[in-house]
Amino acid sequence: MRLSRSFLPILRETPKEAEIVSHRLMLRAGLIRQQSAGIYSWLPLGKRVLANIERIVREEQDRAGAIEVLMPTLQSADLWKESGRYDDYGKEMLRIEDRHERAMLYGPTNEEMITDIFRSYVRSYKELPLNLYHIQWKFRDEVRPRFGVMRGREFLMKDAYSFDIDEAAARRAYNRMFVAYLRTFDRLGVKAIPMRADSGPIGGDATHEFIVLAATGESAVFLDKAALDTPIPPADVDFDGDLTPIVAAWTEKYAATEEMHDKAVFEALPEDQRIEARGIEVGQVFYFGTKYSEPMGAKVTGPDGVEHAVHMGSYGIGVSRLVAAIIEASHDEAGIIWPESIAPYRVGLINMKAGDDATDTVCNAIYERLTNAGIEVLYDDLDQRAGAKFATMDLIGLPWQLIVGPRGLANGEVELKRRATGERETLTIDAAVNRLIAG
Amino acid sequence: MRLSRSFLPILRETPKEAEIVSHRLMLRAGLIRQQSAGIYSWLPLGKRVLANIERIVREEQDRAGAIEVLMPTLQSADLWKESGRYDDYGKEMLRIEDRHERAMLYGPTNEEMITDIFRSYVRSYKELPLNLYHIQWKFRDEVRPRFGVMRGREFLMKDAYSFDIDEAAARRAYNRMFVAYLRTFDRLGVKAIPMRADSGPIGGDATHEFIVLAATGESAVFLDKAALDTPIPPADVDFDGDLTPIVAAWTEKYAATEEMHDKAVFEALPEDQRIEARGIEVGQVFYFGTKYSEPMGAKVTGPDGVEHAVHMGSYGIGVSRLVAAIIEASHDEAGIIWPESIAPYRVGLINMKAGDDATDTVCNAIYERLTNAGIEVLYDDLDQRAGAKFATMDLIGLPWQLIVGPRGLANGEVELKRRATGERETLTIDAAVNRLIAG
Repeated sequence: MRLSRSFLPILRETPKEAEIVSHRLMLRAGLIRQQSAGIYSWLPLGKRVLANIERIVREEQDRAGAIEVLMPTLQSADLWKESGRYDDYGKEMLRIEDRHERAMLYGPTNEEMITDIFRSYVRSYKELPLNLYHIQWKFRDEVRPRFGVMRGREFLMKDAYSFDIDEAAARRAYNRMFVAYLRTFDRLGVKAIPMRADSGPIGGDATHEFIVLAATGESAVFLDKAALDTPIPPADVDFDGDLTPIVAAWTEKYAATEEMHDKAVFEALPEDQRIEARGIEVGQVFYFGTKYSEPMGAKVTGPDGVEHAVHMGSYGIGVSRLVAAIIEASHDEAGIIWPESIAPYRVGLINMKAGDDATDTVCNAIYERLTNAGIEVLYDDLDQRAGAKFATMDLIGLPWQLIVGPRGLANGEVELKRRATGERETLTIDAAVNRLIAG
Repeated sequence: MRLSRSFLPILRETPKEAEIVSHRLMLRAGLIRQQSAGIYSWLPLGKRVLANIERIVREEQDRAGAIEVLMPTLQSADLWKESGRYDDYGKEMLRIEDRHERAMLYGPTNEEMITDIFRSYVRSYKELPLNLYHIQWKFRDEVRPRFGVMRGREFLMKDAYSFDIDEAAARRAYNRMFVAYLRTFDRLGVKAIPMRADSGPIGGDATHEFIVLAATGESAVFLDKAALDTPIPPADVDFDGDLTPIVAAWTEKYAATEEMHDKAVFEALPEDQRIEARGIEVGQVFYFGTKYSEPMGAKVTGPDGVEHAVHMGSYGIGVSRLVAAIIEASHDEAGIIWPESIAPYRVGLINMKAGDDATDTVCNAIYERLTNAGIEVLYDDLDQRAGAKFATMDLIGLPWQLIVGPRGLANGEVELKRRATGERETLTIDAAVNRLIAG
């Protein structure tokens, strides 16, 4: 994409309303724009990051055997009356009346609706295990939305729901999602640690939160240093096999949020193994048995010929929130540092003298070669001063900057800069292009 | 995907509530499920089709130079008061009050919000032309929602908005979208004819509807037979060049909906060139000048140093509606006939004797070869009778069926059936696989 043809509204001033660094950087780098309290538009760069996160989340859900559906944003209040949560949910639920005065709501989560879908089609244990997920906008009417998309009102979430014949099978489903989450966050380029958690309003007796470690995180976390070195399961992990050892390797190590912190256990660890850090919740997995299937009549005939209420779990990833969480975990004074897997473009190509025939010709040729090799390039072809160009590229945080100026070109050379480390290298044009193509 | 691991709830009975064939087939083939009046969940097969349509729409928008953003579903009423449409819109607009009693609404369209985004960032004509689009769920509170996703309340739409310095530039933007739409619908496998149209509540003095021809279409259309043979612009059409001849080739030929029908002009055509048909609107393009930019103050400084209200256009494609429209245009007694480009899977692999070692082994090998070649296969590995398997495959309408049974295998042969024509061919396993891989 040529910058002259894109829409990248950079703010030079730091917006006053932004209290945390990710919110500031997302506004400054032109990723989002606030439309109402807690409700954002995603500008081109932000939309690309969101789509990249979605893609990775989807690939790992599919790999783990979950099946994608798409439920609507608006739901009938009737379903929530069946489960008993309509009155419980309080003011965070956005209640709506349509023109026929039917009670509707903007879904804050989908346990009820998915249970309704399940019960209308599935009759036999032979159709299990089943795990259905979707990626959809949700709404929680936070009393004081803030921190940008970190605690917005309209937010994008991946939520999966598993259905099994009994608790043992449901725990296998839980483990599959647990492993999928380890892989997902790793591919997103963040360190996310599963921690024992409180089940909150969704209910359930087994639940873990996945917490991204970030110095600016919202909550204090306590963990065994060994958790940081526990290996991430590989792409060819067998989701039909026994995943208990993988899950146990994580859950055996102490890791808890402040809420669930057990000081005595933590302090039993050798002192140099105790880590006190801060983190941001980006996902949560729940097993909650028959909490919804019982009242809503989601039953299947078992091998015994008898009807059983299915055992369920739910599994969320905050997709829009992740954009902010990743920035909290990966930025510096100059701006965002995107992990390669989700960067809006991999390379920023900077033409230092746009309008000059020689530099334009070389930049066009490089742009074409990289693009043809399948590399996503943002080509800064604007006629601006060098300082502004560098500041913008650092701010938007693409992993690589390729700097093409007349002085270097006199020697057939360009400069390649790695955003994360600031390292710069002077290379021939071919060497620089080949380096980027090679990965 | 193995059918035993997917979720494909086929209905054997025709649902009573469905009045039109696409609605019946979408329910029967397990594409959608109604959650409330005019509000649907997309089941796995339907979600895949929707994603395929989205992908093609996106590719053609990008090719034409439009830039993707994502606006939220909920909007503040204030914006609509600025444009003057808040009171005009009537009961089709779903009005919502949040916990702080702020007036919100579920966006039925986005002219106001995009104009607001534009005016907050763009100051100079040098940043034009600009065309921003998004693909997002919208809501129109139809008094009597019906016909499934054809006239639903919550629906997925692609809407693009162009901003230009003057009318001449805006008409070039209009032509770019016009050409993009010709290509989009062609790639989706339907015949969509641009027709002169009424501008309705969006306003504007130039507008065309794109109408898919289907015998079961909602409205009568009248066209010059020559429109059917007008060529579709190629993938390498130059969107920076003069598109007027391409657009003129279409708009010069008579084509109008009943609303805009001019009997005298139509009857001036030779009789054998007049076509009276039925159609379904799937897209509309508008040029509406400064209708929103004036009242909302979306202005840029021109080359003359003076501020000008920008000239705008908007361009919609009904993404969820297209699923139904394509089925209306492409089905038979047995079920859906998907165009290859949007089929949920390209091949249905039917194991006629699931559980038999020999057939299982061959099917597994074929499944693996096709999948490794990047072909999307739905593998029916269920132990069911042949009749039910064939009926399901015909109903869900995958372009190709590959039938593997013990009798054929005795001679090393399988059967390849083309859904659209019903043609069947007996081939060796290799020949059948190679045929599918070759395309």
